[in-house]
Amino acid sequence: MSTSGAASPPEQAAVFTRIRLADRRDVPNIHRLIHQMAEFELLTDLFSATESSLSSTLFPSPPLLPFHSFTVLILEISQSPIHNAAEDDSDLGFRPITRRIALKSVFADPEASIFTSPRGDGLVVAGFLLCFPNYSSFMGRPGIYVEDIFVRESWRRLGMGKMMLAAVAREAARMGCGRVEWCVLDWNKNAIAFYEGMGAEVLPQWRICRLTGEELSKYAVDEEDSAGRP
Amino acid sequence: MSTSGAASPPEQAAVFTRIRLADRRDVPNIHRLIHQMAEFELLTDLFSATESSLSSTLFPSPPLLPFHSFTVLILEISQSPIHNAAEDDSDLGFRPITRRIALKSVFADPEASIFTSPRGDGLVVAGFLLCFPNYSSFMGRPGIYVEDIFVRESWRRLGMGKMMLAAVAREAARMGCGRVEWCVLDWNKNAIAFYEGMGAEVLPQWRICRLTGEELSKYAVDEEDSAGRP
Repeated sequence: MSTSGAASPPEQAAVFTRIRLADRRDVPNIHRLIHQMAEFELLTDLFSATESSLSSTLFPSPPLLPFHSFTVLILEISQSPIHNAAEDDSDLGFRPITRRIALKSVFADPEASIFTSPRGDGLVVAGFLLCFPNYSSFMGRPGIYVEDIFVRESWRRLGMGKMMLAAVAREAARMGCGRVEWCVLDWNKNAIAFYEGMGAEVLPQWRICRLTGEELSKYAVDEEDSAGRP
Repeated sequence: MSTSGAASPPEQAAVFTRIRLADRRDVPNIHRLIHQMAEFELLTDLFSATESSLSSTLFPSPPLLPFHSFTVLILEISQSPIHNAAEDDSDLGFRPITRRIALKSVFADPEASIFTSPRGDGLVVAGFLLCFPNYSSFMGRPGIYVEDIFVRESWRRLGMGKMMLAAVAREAARMGCGRVEWCVLDWNKNAIAFYEGMGAEVLPQWRICRLTGEELSKYAVDEEDSAGRP
């Protein structure tokens, strides 16, 4: 491809990214992303989220401070540099992070028209991260737990997942948190190598216990209070 | 031991228990309990909590709603029935749970004088539970994560850990949570059998990733914002 300026360097394919705080307008895209994640993990039988349930549980009004409650970050991409609007530097205090990522070649995103961003022309949502505070009693300090990191198929292997995780680690370090934690499937050796490269330790011995569905509902019934009986 | 009433049944050894919400006055006992837990798990090298750090991170002023943020339940025991004082039915909405537990024999608690409760004569703190909200994106609903369940040596194998976990499950079910989750060490077969008996599923494939210490501190440094550079 020729350019008008004779002295211009050859154009290199690139994509511009932004990580910003989600708000209620992002719910339809978040819902679609979570469904894709369930498909990717072959767990669509566990998928029961609705736009309405996500909206009411993730975006209370007034909004809570990011990283002090359930927090969703949105990853957007654009073919041109992304300029933050005034609304993006909101009172909530998370300054959007923009980057330019060089590409070996330009490629198509067949889902671009489905994942248009509510924040502007030409912006497409490529992924999300969901996190919330957790607590280490040994350290006597809060931490951050990352429940989901997801990048759509077209935009994988470009470091975007790492960018989102690093954004959370940065906030956690600045907030004085003791830890950032998340989970990985033990057979996903690529993911494990990637996380270890970021400085994380994979704990071999701990297993998650889960009480859900009817087994959980049983506990709603009050047991008789037997105090004081002979 | 003889009793005064001729027709009285033979006295059976028993202990009375109460599970209630912790407050700031419980911090010294919580600190001691966490240290005992670290000793039990052979992880005292990870123990750095102080009374001050626990107080400021677990008990903000004004207090937050229980189970909507970091929440500590205290397990108390007494030789006589425990009557809830007015302060125990606080605006925070967690009604204390009292029980009578039959014992095969009376036994000594050598730490009773160290773990006296700030809530009244004869009450001794026997354990605690620490939990906080988590989130299932597949369900689009909050859940509760139990970080710690600990009962002091003298009071184990009497069902008190189960009572605390059941108290959380009850709250979770009533709040419409999708799940209650916690972790167990894979070699702790007794604990696993116990949790499965409570209706929990142990997930075999997930591993916890942890970013902490210097590896986490590195992320506090801002990376250069490269957006817009050629």
